[in-house]
Amino acid sequence: MTDSGVGTRRLFSRRSFATGAAAAAVVPAVLGTIAAAPKDKPASSGGGEVRNLTLYMEKLPNGEMGYGLHPGQATIPGPLIELTEGDTMNIEVVNNLDVAASLHVHGLDYDTASDGTRMNDSVVQPGARRTYVWRTHAPSRRHDGTWEAGSAGYWHYHDHNVGTEHGTDGIRKGLYGPVVVRRKGDVLPDKTFTVVFNNMTINNRTAPDTPTFKAVRDERVEFLVITHGDFFHTFHVHGHRWTDNRTGIWQGPQDVSQVIDTRTTGPADSFGFQVIAGERVGAGAWMYHCHVQSHSDMGMSGVFVVTEADGTVPGDPHPM
Amino acid sequence: MTDSGVGTRRLFSRRSFATGAAAAAVVPAVLGTIAAAPKDKPASSGGGEVRNLTLYMEKLPNGEMGYGLHPGQATIPGPLIELTEGDTMNIEVVNNLDVAASLHVHGLDYDTASDGTRMNDSVVQPGARRTYVWRTHAPSRRHDGTWEAGSAGYWHYHDHNVGTEHGTDGIRKGLYGPVVVRRKGDVLPDKTFTVVFNNMTINNRTAPDTPTFKAVRDERVEFLVITHGDFFHTFHVHGHRWTDNRTGIWQGPQDVSQVIDTRTTGPADSFGFQVIAGERVGAGAWMYHCHVQSHSDMGMSGVFVVTEADGTVPGDPHPM
Amino acid sequence: MTDSGVGTRRLFSRRSFATGAAAAAVVPAVLGTIAAAPKDKPASSGGGEVRNLTLYMEKLPNGEMGYGLHPGQATIPGPLIELTEGDTMNIEVVNNLDVAASLHVHGLDYDTASDGTRMNDSVVQPGARRTYVWRTHAPSRRHDGTWEAGSAGYWHYHDHNVGTEHGTDGIRKGLYGPVVVRRKGDVLPDKTFTVVFNNMTINNRTAPDTPTFKAVRDERVEFLVITHGDFFHTFHVHGHRWTDNRTGIWQGPQDVSQVIDTRTTGPADSFGFQVIAGERVGAGAWMYHCHVQSHSDMGMSGVFVVTEADGTVPGDPHPM
Ligand SMILES: [Cu+2]
Ligand SMILES: [Cu+2]
Ligand SMILES: [Cu+2]
Repeated sequence: MTDSGVGTRRLFSRRSFATGAAAAAVVPAVLGTIAAAPKDKPASSGGGEVRNLTLYMEKLPNGEMGYGLHPGQATIPGPLIELTEGDTMNIEVVNNLDVAASLHVHGLDYDTASDGTRMNDSVVQPGARRTYVWRTHAPSRRHDGTWEAGSAGYWHYHDHNVGTEHGTDGIRKGLYGPVVVRRKGDVLPDKTFTVVFNNMTINNRTAPDTPTFKAVRDERVEFLVITHGDFFHTFHVHGHRWTDNRTGIWQGPQDVSQVIDTRTTGPADSFGFQVIAGERVGAGAWMYHCHVQSHSDMGMSGVFVVTEADGTVPGDPHPM
Repeated sequence: MTDSGVGTRRLFSRRSFATGAAAAAVVPAVLGTIAAAPKDKPASSGGGEVRNLTLYMEKLPNGEMGYGLHPGQATIPGPLIELTEGDTMNIEVVNNLDVAASLHVHGLDYDTASDGTRMNDSVVQPGARRTYVWRTHAPSRRHDGTWEAGSAGYWHYHDHNVGTEHGTDGIRKGLYGPVVVRRKGDVLPDKTFTVVFNNMTINNRTAPDTPTFKAVRDERVEFLVITHGDFFHTFHVHGHRWTDNRTGIWQGPQDVSQVIDTRTTGPADSFGFQVIAGERVGAGAWMYHCHVQSHSDMGMSGVFVVTEADGTVPGDPHPM
Repeated sequence: MTDSGVGTRRLFSRRSFATGAAAAAVVPAVLGTIAAAPKDKPASSGGGEVRNLTLYMEKLPNGEMGYGLHPGQATIPGPLIELTEGDTMNIEVVNNLDVAASLHVHGLDYDTASDGTRMNDSVVQPGARRTYVWRTHAPSRRHDGTWEAGSAGYWHYHDHNVGTEHGTDGIRKGLYGPVVVRRKGDVLPDKTFTVVFNNMTINNRTAPDTPTFKAVRDERVEFLVITHGDFFHTFHVHGHRWTDNRTGIWQGPQDVSQVIDTRTTGPADSFGFQVIAGERVGAGAWMYHCHVQSHSDMGMSGVFVVTEADGTVPGDPHPM
């Protein structure tokens, strides 16, 4: 087990910022700042904030690749980017790799110039930089009376160019990260944990080096689960379940969605959900793992540790 | 890239018929005609229209097999068959193959005599013909107060006999096609595009021979995605997203379904959705592909071209 | 074809009990009895019944392993355990195997002491016994106004310790079984059939030894489908369809769920649904099978026989 906050992942807790809790253990995610759009691009807002951000694509010492908020600080997964429907994000991507690479996002609105594909001439050469513009929108009714869904969802970004025109090598080496778009009024979590099933790894690691996610009992914890690579997986967490809808939160008696604790997922799929840590089951060390038996046996497994308020964990969990 | 209208696929646009738009590029789908049922079978209607149709099963010059509306015109996928809940379709299948083959449909109502299995003695010998009867129904309440769902959905048909009693060889060679059953009041698309992930192909083709789907910005485009064979896949399209419900169209604030741009799918799964071409992202060349990395790299990829009203595409997309 | 009631499976029909119908063919499932909690554990009730049960883990003559309600009566799958939200089940597990094994359940509420993992020291040594406590709860509102979903669902239990710390060998050999948690007011089925896709088998059998499920036309039949092992599968049944929501029953016009007859599923996934046997399609022999072509060809296929009230089946279905 490795501690979740040390280097390999990047967590964000809006409430943690407000309260200062766990400040040492989590790396701030990207809230950006309200700012004018870059001079060479018109602001393109869905009525929300316009934010600017710089992402550095870099090679890690072990040959992996990652996105980071500052030079020398790339992580796998890359930083969590959180938006509210209506927001626009201008992301200047600096390519410090020795190959052309890109930024392709799922679920958000972007022109072909921000598509991140070679076909649309939207990749970044080594040593160069390029601004990608991501827009989002709230639900609305079209003129024909049909509804247009909003951008809210658990999404993700990844390279679409390294190795093949689909980014197969870039993704395998770590060029991916999480995106959350919230609807106004959505319940905010205390913490967000990102799990990326990338081929036979979790966040490019296998047990016992997979992340240990830590929460205090009764905290509202958000999981964001992304899949990449060549295989299907089934995400399972012990002692906790969620609703298979947009938010993962049951919306009341009219919500007919299935409640699940395991979900089958394939490459580029993403979903998220919130649980109350230890609700009805108590504090403890709870396994999360891919439930494909050979995958969990090969190391696609980790631990979600729910402590009591005083930081203790009942029992004496054996190391896996 | 191959043009979508040339021979390998069969599109249908009710509005295209009305307006004459793109008439040269699309092959009419099957609306059938209001007709009496065949003499040897009682009409069995769900209150809707009773239609008759003839489907020819044939070997294609390259050894593939297909269903077609006329002799010598088999296509892969076979013709799109569109029904409204309540309709009945009598399909006379003519077997011009040199092996016994059949017609098995998903989602619709049929007796064992129209099951298309050897077990139920409902296959067609070479040189013979057999009428299969498909019925559909609208939602209703049962006497016990529970609801019976209607037949509306994105379905499909396929052989269930060639090679094995499950039709493995027939399906692999191209004996499959799309079915749409609409509910009265459902929003109609301007165009329907069918994507069949059949083993490591799209519609039995790999890039650069996969279909190029063309639409004019703001057209309402329907995708119908079917999987066949031995593998799972994840369908992804760039720049567009849909709702993971029956219609793929968000039904408003009470609709808790997840909005997605990627869906994991396995053999015989089918789903569909409608998008407004270029909505919030503009005209352009938008990739669609299986997002299993090795699959897209091996050619499970194509292009959805959204043109401006004048037929132009912004940028200068590089050929893949 | 093997008869469904002979030894390899365990069915439950609440209505069958009431009426005595098919009493010879089905093995009673676990309703438990209203009882005090065991002395060494506090009763922990969600307001419902507290039930006690003993499960025996045993080796079968052919080297398989199973759970059973009585010594020498282990079955694959194990007994169906049926609860109503609020109920608590105390299960004393007797390990008559020669290896340490356990009981891990999906979807229900349990402390780490009932987790069934080596990590949480909750496995049972050979010759020993251990009581696992499963709790369930109805939906409710939390103090913060959000909803907590109830425990209702189609769940399952399995070993988490034999072979590997994830129970890979125990599951492969048959240590798994079905659980249903019902919400008060849920429609009850006449019969429940359990299908477990376990690697390339159905309930550890391949055709022609897979179960034949029998129902009389118009009976309300419940399917509970569980997946285990290393592969994904797609469950399909001929002539019947269901709604992809919690119950599998369409909830009326506001229910936007997709109606399906095929569902992609991976290890530890589970779902269920009810159909009216032969509704709109009549009596007959209806195939159910995994629709991955190579899987059905290798024997992941069986028959759902819907008879007329007099027990006859129209046509003369050929043996597969
Ligand atoms: Cu996995
Ligand atoms: Cu694929
Ligand atoms: Cu299978």
